[in-house]
Formats: sequence, structure tokens, C-alpha cells
Amino acid sequence: MADNYDVDELSALLIAGKRRALAKAITLIESKKPEHKKLAKRLLERILPRSGNSIRIGISGVPGVGKSTFIEAFGLYLIEKGHRVAVLAVDPSSQITGGSLLGDKTRMEELSRRNEAFIRPSPSGDSLGGVARRTREAIFLCEAAGYDIIIVETVGVGQSEISVSSMVDFFLLMQLPNAGDELQGIKRGVMEVADAIVINKADEENLQRAQLAKKQIENALSIFLNVDKSWKVPVILVSARYKKGIDEVYETISKYVKIKKKSGEFYKKRQQQSIQWMWSVVVEGLKEMLNENEQVRRFAKEMESAVINKLTTPSFAAENILSEFKNSVCRG
Amino acid sequence: MADNYDVDELSALLIAGKRRALAKAITLIESKKPEHKKLAKRLLERILPRSGNSIRIGISGVPGVGKSTFIEAFGLYLIEKGHRVAVLAVDPSSQITGGSLLGDKTRMEELSRRNEAFIRPSPSGDSLGGVARRTREAIFLCEAAGYDIIIVETVGVGQSEISVSSMVDFFLLMQLPNAGDELQGIKRGVMEVADAIVINKADEENLQRAQLAKKQIENALSIFLNVDKSWKVPVILVSARYKKGIDEVYETISKYVKIKKKSGEFYKKRQQQSIQWMWSVVVEGLKEMLNENEQVRRFAKEMESAVINKLTTPSFAAENILSEFKNSVCRG
Repeated sequence: MADNYDVDELSALLIAGKRRALAKAITLIESKKPEHKKLAKRLLERILPRSGNSIRIGISGVPGVGKSTFIEAFGLYLIEKGHRVAVLAVDPSSQITGGSLLGDKTRMEELSRRNEAFIRPSPSGDSLGGVARRTREAIFLCEAAGYDIIIVETVGVGQSEISVSSMVDFFLLMQLPNAGDELQGIKRGVMEVADAIVINKADEENLQRAQLAKKQIENALSIFLNVDKSWKVPVILVSARYKKGIDEVYETISKYVKIKKKSGEFYKKRQQQSIQWMWSVVVEGLKEMLNENEQVRRFAKEMESAVINKLTTPSFAAENILSEFKNSVCRG
Repeated sequence: MADNYDVDELSALLIAGKRRALAKAITLIESKKPEHKKLAKRLLERILPRSGNSIRIGISGVPGVGKSTFIEAFGLYLIEKGHRVAVLAVDPSSQITGGSLLGDKTRMEELSRRNEAFIRPSPSGDSLGGVARRTREAIFLCEAAGYDIIIVETVGVGQSEISVSSMVDFFLLMQLPNAGDELQGIKRGVMEVADAIVINKADEENLQRAQLAKKQIENALSIFLNVDKSWKVPVILVSARYKKGIDEVYETISKYVKIKKKSGEFYKKRQQQSIQWMWSVVVEGLKEMLNENEQVRRFAKEMESAVINKLTTPSFAAENILSEFKNSVCRG
């Protein structure tokens, strides 16, 4: 029974590296049943001291860019190098479809058969915030189970890349080998978080186009201020299908991690990510408190109208909402 | 006496377009004295129905790019076209220096002598949030006083551009005519909010370099996804010193406003800006409530340590802080 959780046993099996225990533990933290929440908390607090010992890699790109083919090739390469690889997904669109990303079991067929790999589709039926929380906690579980490379895959649409970039050490943006007018657009916000850009499908027959695309993206990158003096975002040609360029991606990430560990930024970034995550949940919770109170919610709607109708300024309206919040929520 | 405010008289004089009344009104809303806050609220609510009838333009660029020379030339051009121009500034660094941007009275000498222009330095001694709030409210005052073009200038450092972009209709990024290795970097986040890029100092002797820079920036822009189908970000060559290209900037902004008014996006964006501003003040206020309570603040610090020391997850720590908030702040 999936409902039958013995946290002591589950955490022991998980720490021993049992894949079935890991899968069950993730199901537990994904559960929305109130009785499971307590168990999830105990489980997570039990395994947390054993988490963290991994490299967390975010991968994003539009549908059709070849994310699964790349992750399969990259994952198998990592296993050859002696790593254990967990692949998680953040796909808020699974809210509607019931899980599109990684839902198809035939994807990453070879990788999924390997003992050193663990593949888990995106949790479904939740907002991006909910999906992100559960993925962050799944990262801890995978780490405690001994996976030392965690890949978090996301689709190249919406806010999900920004969210994933805040939970990983390294963010990889995948592009198609299109140049000139065919060049697929990079969302401006995503460019900000990319630590490397991979041009996939740079197969023999596409090589020239891929090289042109590489040049074009490198030129574009050069107009940006390099805030991070220790890292210049590289553009890497890859043919996931023919397993070319995979080693360069591996070496790039290794180099990045080495530089950032030496300077201490690696650990600092993780701490910042955790603290920022904590505060973002606090802020969300405060907003929820405000919205859950019928009276305050109605009052806030009135204030929105007042602002739109120029009866008051946004900042005075906000002060009114805050007063109402103090009066109603706290008394309620 | 600056302390002597008669709101009825002040708003009447302001609406009549008296510059001294406008200056005094801005001083009132900038004041931190509690007795002034009430008066400021009354004044703002009085003049609000007369606000909004303007085009709000944000201008940013690194020091040395020639912002004041450009704004002087642009402002005089606008006056020739029959406009009345207010120039405000957002410079959070004035927190330290006591007002650097626009603080120098010799800047924009010709423009500042014109009756159709109103120039006001950045409020000083406050956080970016505070400076932004007071600038937003100063925009309302300038509009009520009949200024139909509001220019909000900001320095090209830090978060101030993002903040300014959320209070204007059109955001102009100024660049130097440097190409190749000399190209000054554009911050990745700022690229996201630019509606046009001006390459200034494209004087006769710099023209070739400026054209090269234009080409380079246009190429870079082309790799971005065009989310806004109705607007392609143009790169405009300007020589503010020799008053060249000013007309093109004017026509570009006019075209943008025309397109956006026709589609209704112009008004929709302003409403969204107001509502977002309101909610951001609410969230800031909630965070303040949390931080002002000694007990909660101490508890939050403990939770930060617990997260860093892997004793609990960020989301459980956040839940604990929220419980403590409910218990302490509400009772306090």
C-alpha cells in the first residue's frame, strides 16, 4: 500500500539507495493529504543531513530541441564516468495535461533501464509554486539516496526556467541549430540565468548552420555586461543523437563547479537559494492569509477599483489594505 | 514657510500650473514628518482625477553616456512641438551622496530656464522603494500641473531601471557608440525592459563606430523572442550635442504610443502598473510587520540558521515563521 508509510524504515531504505524507497518517498512528499504532510516533514528532516552532496543541473529548451535525447546521452555519459544520475522535471503545464514532460515512459529508454539512473516525471495538478516546492524536496531525497548528479528538466515556456534556475547550481539552455531569420528566439529573461548554451542537433548535415548559430549567439552574448567576472557563458555544439559534444558539456560544468567551489560561491549560492526560497514561501503565505479572509479580500478588490478610478493612490490603497488585514485577519 | 501647507490653496495653484506650487507639493509628498503625510494624502487624492494625461518616458544609461545633454536637447525639442516637460529622477545612490543625479543645477541649463519645463532632482536619503514611491507620486502632481511629457531619468546601475520601467509608458536605454571589445555591457535584466535603444554621441567623428555599434546591438536583439508582436525594439543613432536624431526618438515614441493606445495596451499597462504597485506595497508592509516584531524577527533568524544547518527544509521553516507571525504579530 502506498498509503502505508513507516518513516523510519522508508528513510533507512532510501539512504541505503533503494530506488523503490526513493520513489515511494517522493510520492509521499507529493501527496496533498494532511496526514501525509506530517510524515513528509519527519522524513525530510530525517534525511536532510545527508542531502546536498551533488551537482544540480537545470536544463531547458523549447519542445523539439531534443531535451530527452540529450539527457539520455548525457546521463549515460555521466554513468560511464562513475556518477549516479537523477532526472526530475518541472512542468507546470502538467496541471492541465496531467503530466506531459517525462510522462512518456518510452523517453530515455536506455537511461531508464540503468541501475545508476532514477527518472521521475513532473508532479502534476499544481501551480508552478507547488511543482517547484515538491521538486526542490525531491532533490534532497535523491541526494540522500546517493545520486550525485541531479538533472532538473523544464520546458522552455513561461516562468518555469526562472524557477528552476533558483534551485540548481548550473543552468543549461538548449537551442536549435538555426541562424539568421530562422533563429528561434531566446526569451530575454532566460538569457539572464543561462550558465551555458548548448546548440543541439549539430549533426554532420547541420554543422554549418549550427556554427553560424553559435557565432550569432556568441555575438549577442558579447553585448551583455559580464557581471560574473569568473565565468563567460560558453556556446557548445552538441549532437545528442550522435553523442558528439557531450564531453564538452561535462567538462564545462566540471570547470564551473571547480571555479565556484574554490571561490566559495558554490556554497554561498546554495545558502542564498535556500534562504530566498524560505522567504518566498513566507511571502506567499502572508498573501494567502490576506486572501483567505473574505472581508479583507473584498476590501482589497474595492481598493483596486479605487486605484483604477483614481480615487486614491496605490500606496495609500495599500496602507488601507494593511490596516484592514491587521483588524480582520488577526482578530479572525 | 515650507511647513505651512494649505492643501486647498496648494492644489488650486498647482492645477493652475504654478511651478512654485508644484515644487512645494513635491516637497510635501517627500516629507517624512507624520503631520505632512496626512496633508500629502489629501493633496494627492484631490489632484488624482486630473492626473494621467501624459506620456511617461523612462531614460537610463551609464554615467558619461550623456543623459543630461540628451534630455536637454530632447526637452527643448518637445517644447518646440508644443509640449510641457517635467523631468524627474530616480537615484537611490542619493541615499549616500545626498542627491547626485540632477542635483547639479548647471545641468540642463537652457531647459531649466524655460517656462514649459520643470526639473526636479531625485528625492534623497531613502531606499529605492522610497525614492520610487515618491517619484510615482510626483508624476501625478506634474500631470495635474499640466505637464504632458514626464521624463524619469535614472542611473544605469542596480535595480533602479527595473523600478523606473514599472512606472513609465516607454523605456529608453542609452548607450555609447562603442563596438567590438569596447562595447559597454548591457545588463541582461535591463535589455528586457527597453522599448528603444539610443546610441548617443553618434557625432560626425564617431559615426562609423556608432553605426557598427548599432549593427551589433541589432544583431543581439534579433536572437530574442519577440513576445510583443506589435513592437520591434529599434536602435537609434543620436548626437545630443549636435541635436541630431532627436526627431527620430520623438517619432519612435509617438508611433509606439499610437500603436499601444489603438490596441488599448497603453491604458491596460498603466492599470497593471498601478495594481502591481499597490500589491508590492502591501507585500512590503506585511514583511515590515513581520520584521518589526522582535520575537518574530528573532525566530526568523533561528529558522534561517536551521535551514543553513539542514535541520529543516526552507518550506517547513517558512511555515514555522508564519505560525509565529500569527501568534505574535496579531496578538502584539
